[in-house]
Amino acid sequence: MLIDLNCDMGESFGVWKMGADEEMLSIVTSANIACGFHAGDPDVMFSTLQNARQKNVAVGAHPGFLDLAGFGRRPIYGYTPQQIRNMVIYQIGALKALAESQGFSLQHVKTHGAFGNMAAENSEWAQAVAEAIYQVDQDLIMVVMPGMCTEAAAVQQGLRVIREIYVDRAYAANGNLLSRQLPGAVLHDPQLASERILRMIDQSAITTVNGSTLPVEIDSLCVHGDSPGAVNMARAVRSLLEGRGIQFAPMAQVLAAKG
Amino acid sequence: MLIDLNCDMGESFGVWKMGADEEMLSIVTSANIACGFHAGDPDVMFSTLQNARQKNVAVGAHPGFLDLAGFGRRPIYGYTPQQIRNMVIYQIGALKALAESQGFSLQHVKTHGAFGNMAAENSEWAQAVAEAIYQVDQDLIMVVMPGMCTEAAAVQQGLRVIREIYVDRAYAANGNLLSRQLPGAVLHDPQLASERILRMIDQSAITTVNGSTLPVEIDSLCVHGDSPGAVNMARAVRSLLEGRGIQFAPMAQVLAAKG
Amino acid sequence: MLIDLNCDMGESFGVWKMGADEEMLSIVTSANIACGFHAGDPDVMFSTLQNARQKNVAVGAHPGFLDLAGFGRRPIYGYTPQQIRNMVIYQIGALKALAESQGFSLQHVKTHGAFGNMAAENSEWAQAVAEAIYQVDQDLIMVVMPGMCTEAAAVQQGLRVIREIYVDRAYAANGNLLSRQLPGAVLHDPQLASERILRMIDQSAITTVNGSTLPVEIDSLCVHGDSPGAVNMARAVRSLLEGRGIQFAPMAQVLAAKG
Amino acid sequence: MLIDLNCDMGESFGVWKMGADEEMLSIVTSANIACGFHAGDPDVMFSTLQNARQKNVAVGAHPGFLDLAGFGRRPIYGYTPQQIRNMVIYQIGALKALAESQGFSLQHVKTHGAFGNMAAENSEWAQAVAEAIYQVDQDLIMVVMPGMCTEAAAVQQGLRVIREIYVDRAYAANGNLLSRQLPGAVLHDPQLASERILRMIDQSAITTVNGSTLPVEIDSLCVHGDSPGAVNMARAVRSLLEGRGIQFAPMAQVLAAKG
Repeated sequence: MLIDLNCDMGESFGVWKMGADEEMLSIVTSANIACGFHAGDPDVMFSTLQNARQKNVAVGAHPGFLDLAGFGRRPIYGYTPQQIRNMVIYQIGALKALAESQGFSLQHVKTHGAFGNMAAENSEWAQAVAEAIYQVDQDLIMVVMPGMCTEAAAVQQGLRVIREIYVDRAYAANGNLLSRQLPGAVLHDPQLASERILRMIDQSAITTVNGSTLPVEIDSLCVHGDSPGAVNMARAVRSLLEGRGIQFAPMAQVLAAKG
Repeated sequence: MLIDLNCDMGESFGVWKMGADEEMLSIVTSANIACGFHAGDPDVMFSTLQNARQKNVAVGAHPGFLDLAGFGRRPIYGYTPQQIRNMVIYQIGALKALAESQGFSLQHVKTHGAFGNMAAENSEWAQAVAEAIYQVDQDLIMVVMPGMCTEAAAVQQGLRVIREIYVDRAYAANGNLLSRQLPGAVLHDPQLASERILRMIDQSAITTVNGSTLPVEIDSLCVHGDSPGAVNMARAVRSLLEGRGIQFAPMAQVLAAKG
Repeated sequence: MLIDLNCDMGESFGVWKMGADEEMLSIVTSANIACGFHAGDPDVMFSTLQNARQKNVAVGAHPGFLDLAGFGRRPIYGYTPQQIRNMVIYQIGALKALAESQGFSLQHVKTHGAFGNMAAENSEWAQAVAEAIYQVDQDLIMVVMPGMCTEAAAVQQGLRVIREIYVDRAYAANGNLLSRQLPGAVLHDPQLASERILRMIDQSAITTVNGSTLPVEIDSLCVHGDSPGAVNMARAVRSLLEGRGIQFAPMAQVLAAKG
Repeated sequence: MLIDLNCDMGESFGVWKMGADEEMLSIVTSANIACGFHAGDPDVMFSTLQNARQKNVAVGAHPGFLDLAGFGRRPIYGYTPQQIRNMVIYQIGALKALAESQGFSLQHVKTHGAFGNMAAENSEWAQAVAEAIYQVDQDLIMVVMPGMCTEAAAVQQGLRVIREIYVDRAYAANGNLLSRQLPGAVLHDPQLASERILRMIDQSAITTVNGSTLPVEIDSLCVHGDSPGAVNMARAVRSLLEGRGIQFAPMAQVLAAKG
């Protein structure tokens, strides 16, 4: 069983630091890099790309809403599909140029925060995201939450697709992430998280907060790295899963192995 | 004599409109498109690219300082060469992806406003700009003010170079643009402007405010389009120059003709 | 019958101009001035205050979402009441200091765009707005759409309240403004608009798109000034209404006359 | 000997944290609070005011350049005196309203970063800052670097003035702070720093990097709190100085004692 381990990175901004990117780059296989709209700036993006390269971690774009003050976590309405395409293309393009200027390529795209949650439940937005990715580079992998609109849009667009589940987040009944505002939304115990993940991988199904299961393919696990606790969680979970026979590799290799 | 006629465009932002881009696209041969740092946003960039395409006007990136409130006209110090490279690559990359998503390529890069003026007089910054352009795409043309640091940097980097002069701006003794704060900095009479341009083309030399001449190559004329007066100026100057045997074509064709 | 005529102003930003503020200041009795979050900047705010002062137009704060790119028209969710209070106090405070530095006072506060629409339908947000205004200065008038949550919150907070209706906007069945995306949302004929306004004033009731009436007090009329057509509409409507015996005065005088 | 101990605070932004404000509030007597232009946002400002209040630390505004990406540390040129006044009034006004909404007043204003350094050396800007403060509230104290333009401007404007020296920063020959880019610009040893401060207080003079002394009044010491090392430095210096008979109190008390 080959699976990817991905983490959001490059979420510092100017003088402000966020996340233990250095440590996380020794743990994960793919990095989702903020593109300056909700976090990150050209210098942070450059450094994060450089660091990922040194650790042989594959890199992808992590576009979000233009909302530094809210870190892209506030739901914003009123965008047309054309505007969604433009803002996604802009962000991917900026990161792509910074990566290519260092001699390597982007592997994937994953939407951030409220933008990601909204696209997951809005087929028009999901389609706009898939189109934007395809228009920039049809070889880019689109990372999706299985069962959501983004998965359907990515498949329909003919993109390579990675289905991910979250190691430390509970799932609502519809398969989307449970809001961080709700109790139990974030898991903190590596052992429990690992058991849950193994069960989901074994069953090829998400377990939701109300106990039901939603059958899905699972190609990648998403971990967080924005606190010491998060790093320990990520390291412990990777170690526990490797002890149970799971092997980790970047998204592109996971898809190649699936054939 | 084949020469390019370029204009800054896509300088609207959100609901705010600037410039008579539609009219100018019928006059010029190359468009410098703002990339969201001093003006423009993903939607404005997309529309401007689309409109330029329809009018067969070649497009280029117009990176500036991150300074919407000051329109990139305020001198900002304290950037390292690495930071200059990152901010230029970011902006070119964003526009490049929006252009390529519509099936066409960027032709050139020209720095904006205070950033451009500062790079013209700072060899470290000029070199950083040239490196950034080269790292994104070594076929991109770099537009420079002849005789300034940017020209030397572009040549040294091995980029194709377009030397431009301004149709409606006076020149300081060192060959840089005279500050807009100074009297006589902006010309308003098409006839006088055309005569001045013809003389500079004939002599292959810039005439400065103190009457001296600086020998330069001239590949492109820069016109403004941010007022009705500016549009009339641009149209009149093109017409007057065509009447004197000057032919206009995009930068790439001008360079091809030079051989 | 004494009534106020108010208009949004100071919606330029940096080099970008919006609205015919000069003309509108000769027509209206109260000006709602953007505070830098969705439009405006310290210089635009200063000039707008200065111009209003010269024309004896009363001034108020027009706080909106932090969203220059969207002009505060995009609905943004996820703010707590405390965050609403902070962002309203911040914006009022900034404008208040700029007004007081010129020796005069703010008269009122009116929320802008999507923020205003959302507060009108969300009692928690409406209460947070009323509290913020009260905390800055309990003599400030709160401008509200009659029948909405903001009216109730203003009354409950003990603020002086101005109920306004829009001269050129249609009303949804619930008494809120009909979305600009919907057909018929914006009226363009001064004669029809004036007749509609007179009927609403006579009946003390809003007429909605489905023909029903909602009884309300009407203390102010809101006009727009962001296009030549809008200025003509405002001027014509004021003239037509004055011909029918309506007298115009700033909000504070309207309330004083009501006793 | 009564002296103030001040520290920059409220320099977090959105999700990004900066500084050990909690610890520093137990050490200092006056807090300089960022106003949203180079750091801070309405929520951070509110919380910082609230925390300072609880610890009986006096509060002041810390206006800076509109430059979140550069933390206000990049020199920006091109502002007119009127623009300087507007941006200072805007920022003070925003913080003042947030303070007064909690029932207390601002004590002082101190300019931040590159803005502060530039105003210190530019008499026009220094005067614009002093005028802005005076126009908002003539009882506000203006914090200045002794010997610089800002001191002269504050005195001329008739403002109450606090002269401060930096505990952990070296001084250039002209009495301004030595650029952080230069070696030895930042001191790290509390014992050495305390001895240097005591000597400067005893001599009523600044000691510069080239060993010369510039006679000045010293009313306040500025400490930093943006790292664990900085907090320890601040705590150690206060303790060492108290051991040598220095007493600490907010600026207003220091001035009252001076009579």
